[in-house]
Amino acid sequence: MPAGELRYPSPVSSPQPSQATETPVVVEEDDEAWVWAQIKAEARRDAESEPALASYLYSTILSHSSLERSLSFHLGNKLCSSTLLSTLLYDLFLNTFSSDPSLRAAAVADLRAARVRDPACVSYSHCLLNYKGFLACQSHRVAHRLWNQSRRPLALALHSRISDVFAVDIHPAAKIGKGILFDHATGVVIGETAVVGNNVSILHHVTLGGTGKACGDRHPKIGDGVLIGAGATILGNVKIGAGAKIGAGSVVLIDVPPRTTAVGNPARLVGGKEKPSRHEECPGESMDHTSFISEWSDYII
Amino acid sequence: MPAGELRYPSPVSSPQPSQATETPVVVEEDDEAWVWAQIKAEARRDAESEPALASYLYSTILSHSSLERSLSFHLGNKLCSSTLLSTLLYDLFLNTFSSDPSLRAAAVADLRAARVRDPACVSYSHCLLNYKGFLACQSHRVAHRLWNQSRRPLALALHSRISDVFAVDIHPAAKIGKGILFDHATGVVIGETAVVGNNVSILHHVTLGGTGKACGDRHPKIGDGVLIGAGATILGNVKIGAGAKIGAGSVVLIDVPPRTTAVGNPARLVGGKEKPSRHEECPGESMDHTSFISEWSDYII
Amino acid sequence: MPAGELRYPSPVSSPQPSQATETPVVVEEDDEAWVWAQIKAEARRDAESEPALASYLYSTILSHSSLERSLSFHLGNKLCSSTLLSTLLYDLFLNTFSSDPSLRAAAVADLRAARVRDPACVSYSHCLLNYKGFLACQSHRVAHRLWNQSRRPLALALHSRISDVFAVDIHPAAKIGKGILFDHATGVVIGETAVVGNNVSILHHVTLGGTGKACGDRHPKIGDGVLIGAGATILGNVKIGAGAKIGAGSVVLIDVPPRTTAVGNPARLVGGKEKPSRHEECPGESMDHTSFISEWSDYII
Amino acid sequence: MPAGELRYPSPVSSPQPSQATETPVVVEEDDEAWVWAQIKAEARRDAESEPALASYLYSTILSHSSLERSLSFHLGNKLCSSTLLSTLLYDLFLNTFSSDPSLRAAAVADLRAARVRDPACVSYSHCLLNYKGFLACQSHRVAHRLWNQSRRPLALALHSRISDVFAVDIHPAAKIGKGILFDHATGVVIGETAVVGNNVSILHHVTLGGTGKACGDRHPKIGDGVLIGAGATILGNVKIGAGAKIGAGSVVLIDVPPRTTAVGNPARLVGGKEKPSRHEECPGESMDHTSFISEWSDYII
Amino acid sequence: MPAGELRYPSPVSSPQPSQATETPVVVEEDDEAWVWAQIKAEARRDAESEPALASYLYSTILSHSSLERSLSFHLGNKLCSSTLLSTLLYDLFLNTFSSDPSLRAAAVADLRAARVRDPACVSYSHCLLNYKGFLACQSHRVAHRLWNQSRRPLALALHSRISDVFAVDIHPAAKIGKGILFDHATGVVIGETAVVGNNVSILHHVTLGGTGKACGDRHPKIGDGVLIGAGATILGNVKIGAGAKIGAGSVVLIDVPPRTTAVGNPARLVGGKEKPSRHEECPGESMDHTSFISEWSDYII
Amino acid sequence: MPAGELRYPSPVSSPQPSQATETPVVVEEDDEAWVWAQIKAEARRDAESEPALASYLYSTILSHSSLERSLSFHLGNKLCSSTLLSTLLYDLFLNTFSSDPSLRAAAVADLRAARVRDPACVSYSHCLLNYKGFLACQSHRVAHRLWNQSRRPLALALHSRISDVFAVDIHPAAKIGKGILFDHATGVVIGETAVVGNNVSILHHVTLGGTGKACGDRHPKIGDGVLIGAGATILGNVKIGAGAKIGAGSVVLIDVPPRTTAVGNPARLVGGKEKPSRHEECPGESMDHTSFISEWSDYII
Repeated sequence: MPAGELRYPSPVSSPQPSQATETPVVVEEDDEAWVWAQIKAEARRDAESEPALASYLYSTILSHSSLERSLSFHLGNKLCSSTLLSTLLYDLFLNTFSSDPSLRAAAVADLRAARVRDPACVSYSHCLLNYKGFLACQSHRVAHRLWNQSRRPLALALHSRISDVFAVDIHPAAKIGKGILFDHATGVVIGETAVVGNNVSILHHVTLGGTGKACGDRHPKIGDGVLIGAGATILGNVKIGAGAKIGAGSVVLIDVPPRTTAVGNPARLVGGKEKPSRHEECPGESMDHTSFISEWSDYII
Repeated sequence: MPAGELRYPSPVSSPQPSQATETPVVVEEDDEAWVWAQIKAEARRDAESEPALASYLYSTILSHSSLERSLSFHLGNKLCSSTLLSTLLYDLFLNTFSSDPSLRAAAVADLRAARVRDPACVSYSHCLLNYKGFLACQSHRVAHRLWNQSRRPLALALHSRISDVFAVDIHPAAKIGKGILFDHATGVVIGETAVVGNNVSILHHVTLGGTGKACGDRHPKIGDGVLIGAGATILGNVKIGAGAKIGAGSVVLIDVPPRTTAVGNPARLVGGKEKPSRHEECPGESMDHTSFISEWSDYII
Repeated sequence: MPAGELRYPSPVSSPQPSQATETPVVVEEDDEAWVWAQIKAEARRDAESEPALASYLYSTILSHSSLERSLSFHLGNKLCSSTLLSTLLYDLFLNTFSSDPSLRAAAVADLRAARVRDPACVSYSHCLLNYKGFLACQSHRVAHRLWNQSRRPLALALHSRISDVFAVDIHPAAKIGKGILFDHATGVVIGETAVVGNNVSILHHVTLGGTGKACGDRHPKIGDGVLIGAGATILGNVKIGAGAKIGAGSVVLIDVPPRTTAVGNPARLVGGKEKPSRHEECPGESMDHTSFISEWSDYII
Repeated sequence: MPAGELRYPSPVSSPQPSQATETPVVVEEDDEAWVWAQIKAEARRDAESEPALASYLYSTILSHSSLERSLSFHLGNKLCSSTLLSTLLYDLFLNTFSSDPSLRAAAVADLRAARVRDPACVSYSHCLLNYKGFLACQSHRVAHRLWNQSRRPLALALHSRISDVFAVDIHPAAKIGKGILFDHATGVVIGETAVVGNNVSILHHVTLGGTGKACGDRHPKIGDGVLIGAGATILGNVKIGAGAKIGAGSVVLIDVPPRTTAVGNPARLVGGKEKPSRHEECPGESMDHTSFISEWSDYII
Repeated sequence: MPAGELRYPSPVSSPQPSQATETPVVVEEDDEAWVWAQIKAEARRDAESEPALASYLYSTILSHSSLERSLSFHLGNKLCSSTLLSTLLYDLFLNTFSSDPSLRAAAVADLRAARVRDPACVSYSHCLLNYKGFLACQSHRVAHRLWNQSRRPLALALHSRISDVFAVDIHPAAKIGKGILFDHATGVVIGETAVVGNNVSILHHVTLGGTGKACGDRHPKIGDGVLIGAGATILGNVKIGAGAKIGAGSVVLIDVPPRTTAVGNPARLVGGKEKPSRHEECPGESMDHTSFISEWSDYII
Repeated sequence: MPAGELRYPSPVSSPQPSQATETPVVVEEDDEAWVWAQIKAEARRDAESEPALASYLYSTILSHSSLERSLSFHLGNKLCSSTLLSTLLYDLFLNTFSSDPSLRAAAVADLRAARVRDPACVSYSHCLLNYKGFLACQSHRVAHRLWNQSRRPLALALHSRISDVFAVDIHPAAKIGKGILFDHATGVVIGETAVVGNNVSILHHVTLGGTGKACGDRHPKIGDGVLIGAGATILGNVKIGAGAKIGAGSVVLIDVPPRTTAVGNPARLVGGKEKPSRHEECPGESMDHTSFISEWSDYII
């Protein structure tokens, strides 16, 4: 799961930017079934080759009849505590995933995103079981749904567990698209009014934070296909355009136009504010972190 | 709990900077009682509206007769492990909170700080139950007291549990004032000889580290009312004056005068070293993260 | 465990850089025995002075007949979950440590590194029990060995537990030398093809990440005796020469020659690209984080 | 729950003996709803009067939307172990109770039996939560269903957990009617080919065992409305007629005609083998343990 | 703990029969302190000789400052479940033992009873830690106190846990004297209106049950110094006189005069109903189970 | 597992009575290997047919390389508590089983005994996983070995856990032969100086207790091949001859000659004291519980 690079193309990514909307999604059930079949096949193969892991693989994957059951079981056991029992969480997850096909479609899209973009992601089951970014994101989707149903105390309790267990802190109100890769994920913080589009890749220690000035809409809006490098901090209700790239360690306080790159602390646009360089590929999918090096170095030094 | 902003004023904040002393504090018992009554009322309301959470709310809050009991129970169950049992920790927390009113007063001040400064903090009970920064800070206060009682192995064991569970790493010897908001909190590291004043707000991934040069007093001293942005790294026995502001992602190796702002890597004072700009508000309470943008951008680019 | 400084010299550090090889290591059994005897003596002293901690010290240290048993027990109980039982993990750790003396030698060297370099490390037992960086590193060594034995699903499951529990994310394939200090450790991310030499010190939030361009060897190579400051991000298959120093918060995309210092975002060499300043000491052991301040400040401002 | 006595009549008991058949039962859904409403009302009242128990009552009863969910949750958490997780058992119980209305009807009949026959049974919720006989019996019904579905290894694993946790050992193949009261229940042993009719009351330490002679049908057949006193041992494929009564401590190796009483070791019929005394009431419901004293004493001494 | 025999005399037993009253008891604090000092000395000795057990001994005994704390900790951890947390139970036990000295005095008397009467009881700490009869009895005393305070749902929940964990089923309303030895204890059942005097010894599988006829006072009354053999069943509101002895396996439905012996199924008085043989010793303390053999055999055969 | 009957003959039972000695036993390693292979084959078959149980079967059996590892894992997880961790117990069991082949041979003989004598025992793995009598007996053997090594506090702690978890109470000093079937097992109590021979079958609720008269050798001696029926109570240092049979519910205070039957309360010899009837078969293996009915009934009535 180390800083991933891409073997293009991801079949589920759409070339044109879309909105990170909350509108119902028609589940591509065939797709879900295909991924679930893959996961079971992988787990069966691993269980055979590694008896020490077979019990774990059976309990988390092979004993379940669907992806939503497997995921609910896994999350329930990961996020439970002595005061929030696994049975309660399992029930909550299962009911939510069962009643909202868009959550399942998003999970499948996220699995594909990890599989396609991260060369360290050796299998779908590896992502399902082991990627804290994937697990935190699916849990967030459930918390977000609870939030929208005005079940806020429960959403916030779930949020707290996700932050404790995965060190990933996404406010339940934040809107997250699908086809998302949270790579490594530790330390990610995403604020209440943030919006993240589809097919976005976000590395660890990334902050989408507020500015403290406004009380309402005060967090970044991340367009489709954006790539945000490790440790980047984006503050305030700024707009990161579709297909933009944010360099690792950058501190971004400004809008970033589509298909441009912002780097540095404070971040500036590669190519200059007036006429920034534009790239063609979709960095959220290509995961190209460093091609801006030469330009940047030239620009700065 | 995303990067918080402030609805001023916080009633417990003192306008004048004070020392982060260890002197006994007269507990404002009425204040504690009032906050506890609020917490119970909030929990009761939430338990009624959300049966799935009622068990959790009763076990953590509604079954307890005081804030110190509730907090001891919650921390004992959060921080326990198979080799450090919840009953042992509960006992330790309860004995400590019961015998030291200043710890309870500090907890109340911290609850108020979160409630007032963080627009995402919807209630006192939300902070008490879910804010890992709040919980880590209260646990630290207990570890700090053990440290001062020369019960250092126990203090360090507790420190280790806090770091594992909350990903917040505050050395038990570090002195922390009251009215503190650790917002998001994941990744905070505070060294052995660091001192943090009152009414300070510290975002996630902030480091108050050593320089490696001196063996004794080697960590930063943070004045009252300071705001330290996400990911800032302050190294060495430097002095951050009261009411100063440290920009997100800054690397600070120098003293920062009161009511000035330091930004960048390496950090420089906004307005220049010779005559830095001074702001009037108390950023630790106003949580204004980004008003220095224009100056800074102008200064640098 | 706050940002550590050094009381020189570490007796196990070799002055000349060596290779972070995978070759078998002759265990210095006397050394292991001596350290284990120290640990038991420390634990006995602490158990006597602190009855509340005695149970913990007996279960983790004093009831065991060897360091490898103690460590296996401790890691098994730290890393277990409801689906990966402590008995399974204990067995796995014990078998691995027992059959590979080089892992035990590395653990001893790491204990010494923490004890010598970190002034906050008051005893060997403190490091053994409480340092998440130490514990994550020893667990990683086991995962790495499993990886090399082609037991990859198990290695990845262990990797996932380490990342959840310690917030330290080291890919099982990454090669780590010995005499390593991961100080504070929260948020460390090390990619699949990274190599870390001996006697290296790495602070928290450090990333050794990929660039996304190449699919094969795509992560940094860190020479012996390197010091990497808090929050530094090193990306791509770059070479950090032996004895180099990386400033806190730096973003490094270039090779750094031996015994030179790189700082800033993007990082540049102190003294200039053409003729960088060289230091004499071994920063990975001296832990001198900030002596480059004056040069750097002069250089930049 | 001490040796119970009866306040007649039980509304669900039928006066005429029936067969302990496996035929599908039409669930009296209204009855189930009424009992569930009672249970919730009781639990709500208790939660209000006893905050220390409120968390328990919410998690086990008040957070659930139906009796089958509450029971599945409670049994899952009671019977789970480190190798049989609560989530797995919860799922198993919930699926079984949901798909077989006769199991729910039997549970309701058993709750009524305890409430009506045992003066120590102060409420339905008391029985649901605390009666190990009730809980063991409901678990058995699930194991029995699994057995009949040829899922024998799972049935036997469940059987083993019931025996460990409740010290009640009912072979999954044994057929148990409804309206059953296992009072106190510790030590009850019921063999593979035993059949127990409806409205039977069985005290603790009762054995329905085999004789060792036959390999097939080798355990007792207990008619409707039978009362079996504490510690009674009934061995072999004998027939205990409807409405019969077995004295405490008896060892029964013979058939016992309907509405007669067998006592002693070895047990004989009160009134004599040739013309035993017949009683009018239904002892399984009246719970009259000792009215045979005088006759018996006269007979023996 | 096998079927115990006595080394007479027990220093705390009073020669004259007394009432099993509920009246407050002046705690013999010196006695409590002496026993606690013994227990600590024993545990210290055992911890030194057996490192594998030292952790257990420190957590249960040596880390505590009083018998009531040790006992509360031990019971809290024994009786807890996933829905009744150890911290809650610990708190409940500690509050109860702290506020009622008579409970502590009774615990000390019970410890002495086991130590004096049971040759297999090698130390006080052995009884405190390992005797399920002792632990069930102390838990019952707490449940009984809750019952008398009208906290009945909590008393019944505790009762249920005791029955699950120890297979000892004593209704919370039952009145139990002090200086009680429940030897082996598995399967003991004692009903709601039963009364047990002081210095009584009760073996395993003993039932003090009801008759089903009366709804009010319907269980046995056991005088001081009575010995009840394994598997004996005593039913109904009968009176077992002080110093009486009940043979193993007996079924008793009649009053038994003081200092007489009842044996058999149904039980009869040794020596005959009219003029039963009287013994001089106090069987509850001498634990003489079988001296009635010859008389009985002569009588019967 | 209901009251078992026999399909004769057991291949490991020796026709001639032997002593229940402590002498080292040459492990029939082929036999152990054969049984272990059977167990794995059974578990594999069951895991395939029942995915819900596969995780359990892998963790308890299929992931282990030997019977002793599987058994140690299973017992460690069954007997652990919050104060006696599974890792500690696993280690203790594994070390003991590994170093004493006679314990493994005894376990194999016990597995065979259950498989051959109990028609409800459908497979070896069923016994290994689910028979509390089998598991309690193997745990006892370990406790007994610790006792003989003068590690008595640890032996007694283990004894206590066995009694809590399985409701089987065998004093660690008691000597138990091999080829033992504890059928159902709940409530079995065996005292300190009891001796049980080889190929004995003991049903549930059986007591081998003391008389209270002597302080030394005071418990029953059970010869080879004896069958003791459910609920039988044998008290004092009496000798039950090889091949004898004790009827269910009997209270035995006398010696019973070889190949005779004792029944009743108090027990008498079938056929009369002077010239008791002798049977030919070995009841401990044939499990014939009730063939004495007619004689007995004739004798008594």
